[in-house]
This record gives sequence, C-alpha cells and structure tokens, in this order.
Amino acid sequence: MTYCVAMSLADGLVFVSDSRTNAGVDHIATFRKLYTFGTPGERLIVLQTAGNLATSQSVINLLRLRLRGEGAHLLNVPSLFEAARLVGETMREITEHDAAAAANSGIDMGCSFLLAGQIKDEPPALFNLYPQGNFISATPDTPYFQIGESKYGKPIIDRALRFDTCLDQALRCALISFDSTIRSNLSVGMPLDVMVYRKDTLTVPRGYRIVDGDRYFEGVREQWSDGLRNLLVSLPAPPEGYLE
Amino acid sequence: MTYCVAMSLADGLVFVSDSRTNAGVDHIATFRKLYTFGTPGERLIVLQTAGNLATSQSVINLLRLRLRGEGAHLLNVPSLFEAARLVGETMREITEHDAAAAANSGIDMGCSFLLAGQIKDEPPALFNLYPQGNFISATPDTPYFQIGESKYGKPIIDRALRFDTCLDQALRCALISFDSTIRSNLSVGMPLDVMVYRKDTLTVPRGYRIVDGDRYFEGVREQWSDGLRNLLVSLPAPPEGYLE
Repeated sequence: MTYCVAMSLADGLVFVSDSRTNAGVDHIATFRKLYTFGTPGERLIVLQTAGNLATSQSVINLLRLRLRGEGAHLLNVPSLFEAARLVGETMREITEHDAAAAANSGIDMGCSFLLAGQIKDEPPALFNLYPQGNFISATPDTPYFQIGESKYGKPIIDRALRFDTCLDQALRCALISFDSTIRSNLSVGMPLDVMVYRKDTLTVPRGYRIVDGDRYFEGVREQWSDGLRNLLVSLPAPPEGYLE
Repeated sequence: MTYCVAMSLADGLVFVSDSRTNAGVDHIATFRKLYTFGTPGERLIVLQTAGNLATSQSVINLLRLRLRGEGAHLLNVPSLFEAARLVGETMREITEHDAAAAANSGIDMGCSFLLAGQIKDEPPALFNLYPQGNFISATPDTPYFQIGESKYGKPIIDRALRFDTCLDQALRCALISFDSTIRSNLSVGMPLDVMVYRKDTLTVPRGYRIVDGDRYFEGVREQWSDGLRNLLVSLPAPPEGYLE
C-alpha cells in the first residue's frame, strides 16, 4: 500500500509521501513515490503515485523519456491542465499496453497520481488523476487530495486544514496524518518524502526525506501522542445516564 | 454503512453503535444496531451488527424466536463461547437460506456481529463474528473490536485504549472515535446507542441513546476539536531543511 497527500493552499503547495511498497506481507521494499519535473524560474511539476508500482514507474519513465523528444512533454506544455492531461494519456497508454496480460492474471494494474505545481503566469494547481486517466482539481473548498491508504489520516486533515492555513502549519497537519496512518497500517511506512513549495517562487525544491529516528518528526509524534492522551483525560466525565 | 465498537476491559464492557443504514445515498434510514439479551443476576449478552440489514435482522429475529423453544438459545447456553457459536450457526442458516437469491443478484448479503457480555461464574468476554460465522475473541493485548466503517476512528483507540483503561475514559475514547468517523463518512450517523456494563454486576443496562444536539456529546466534540487545533498549533515549527 501507499499513502500520499498533497495540499494546494493560499501560500503554496505541501506534499508528503511514504515510501513503502508491498506485494504481500513478506515482500516489502522502499520506493520513492514523489517525483519532480521543473525548470527553475519557469515551472515546477510534482507527481505522487499510488497503486501498481510497475504501472506507475512505467508512466514516470515514459514521461521522462519524452522530455528529450519534440512532442508535448512535462517541460513544454503551456498549462498544468495540459500537464495533467498528458499524464492521464500516458497512464492510458501503459494500461492499454498491459491490458491483455492484466486481464488474464487477475492482478489490478491500476495506479493513481496526484499532480501539482505551478507554471509561470498561472496560479498553482493540484489534480487527482484516477486510474482511468481522468482527473479532478482541488479548490479552496477542498484544498487537499489523498491517494492510497487515506482513511486513517483523513479526520485530522478534515478538522485542521483550511485553504488559508499557512504552509508550515499545513505540513505539521500532514505529518500528524502520516503518524496516524503509520500506527494503524503496517503497509504504510518510513521514510517519508516531504516537499513544500511557496507560491510564485518557481523554484524546484530539494525536498526533505524523513528517516527513522528523525529528531523533529519523532518529537512531533511524541508530543502529539501525549497531547491527545491529556486532551482525552481532560474531557468531562459522561453524565450518569450514559452509564446506566 | 455502519460503525460499531465494543471494548472488553478490566472493569467491564463498553459498546457504541451508530444507527444509520443506507442503500445508496438516497435511501437512508435509522435502525438500531445494538441488541441485548439477558436475565438480571444471571447473564447479559449484547449483540452489535454491521453489513446487510436484512440478514442481520433475520438473525436477531431467529435468535429471539428461539428463546421460546426447548433447544439451545441465548438465555440458556452455559457459556459465552457457546453463545457466539449459536449466533455464528444462525448466521450460516440465514446465509444458506438466501444463498441462491444472493448469487443471482450480485448483492452482498453478508453481515458481521460483535457479541459480548457475561454469564454468571464466567469472566466477561467479547467476540468478533465474521460473515462466515466463525469468530475471534478479544484479549488484554487487543481489548476492542470494530465492525463496519472502522478506519477513520481506529487511530484514537489505538493510541488511547489499554485493557486497564477505566470505563468512563474508554467511553470518551469511543465517542471521539465516532466523532472522527461521522465527520469523515456520511454513511455513519446519529443517533448513537451507548451501553456500559460493569464487570460482575450481571445487570442488563438500559443503555443510552445520544441524539442530535445531546449536550454532553456536543460539548465533548467541540472541546475535542478545539483541543486538537490548539495541540497542532503548539507543535514546534519544522526545521528549515523541511521547507527547502
């Protein structure tokens, strides 16, 4: 499994991805699921993936190969909408290529993508691409998307994230969402890939990899756990009627 | 959908069930999913259900009808293990009765049960019955079970519940788990049925129904929401490296 979240906020974009893949519980490996394409000063495009690893890697590989060619590619399309379309079409190309083998195997070869970024003279945008290659875009009402194992980590984002939440606060919210997911689901695991993009800078951020034992993340996890337990204890006791 | 949780703790048992059922988003109704069978001073058996409502109601109806007969029933079986077996067999009976129609319709007629209680001279126990009628029992290591839409509300229970958590604290934890689930999933909804059983009392609790606008529950939800937001704000800001 996988868990990825991307947020499109007033101040910019926040991305966090885990890096665990598994085929059964005895075949677990670490694969990065966050990819960047960009030209500093002109564009940044970030892709995150969930689902079948062979399919998603093939899509990324084709997208990269085509950067060298003459046709439309992620570094020359004029808008993020067209970038999302291009990725959707590449997903369909791979899915069709593998369709016959997939049908006979019973294996789900589908994958999902989150695509976000900014191209000069456009505002930042975030898209959620379904396995069929179609997609929706985030809005100020719904400023985030998740792919993969999304349920455990959804309540905290629903409670705490607004379009105008500042980037470092949003990142903390995303990290807590990952903490809840990692605790409840073995198939989501460290390290985590983090990226924060500040609107209109048109930089290609280096990103940060949180590995086991990362001092800040461990501190946040501990403080959050302690805080939750204290908060629970501080709630008023149920009235008598509840206990009869 | 449905969400039910049951906890088997050192001091007794805690149950919370929602009451929303839906067949599509335009056919929503309220059905109680928490049922009690008992003889004060001798036994208490609580059942909670998730899954196909026709199946689970038929199981409950058969279990009730048989209380009048000579055979084994929930008020005369000598142990909770045998009570769980009886419910499992009744589930199989209904499933087999409806199997032909189910196969042709493509509809999932399966349901799950939680069964818990206490019979005189036995400790309390809690069982999770699968749609196939087999079951597992809770232990001090894993003192709770959920059925239905369980993921949104699982992280808080995993963090806060231990076998030796006191009953009113466990109830607060369960209510927060429901709050998270109700916020994230429309198919889980009010009212909630709550029941707390104190070990060795062998009473049949009346239980409590939390309806929309319940003062205590609303207060707890608000205090929890505010507390979480404050806790998130109080976390230390991410180091520079995270944001580059």
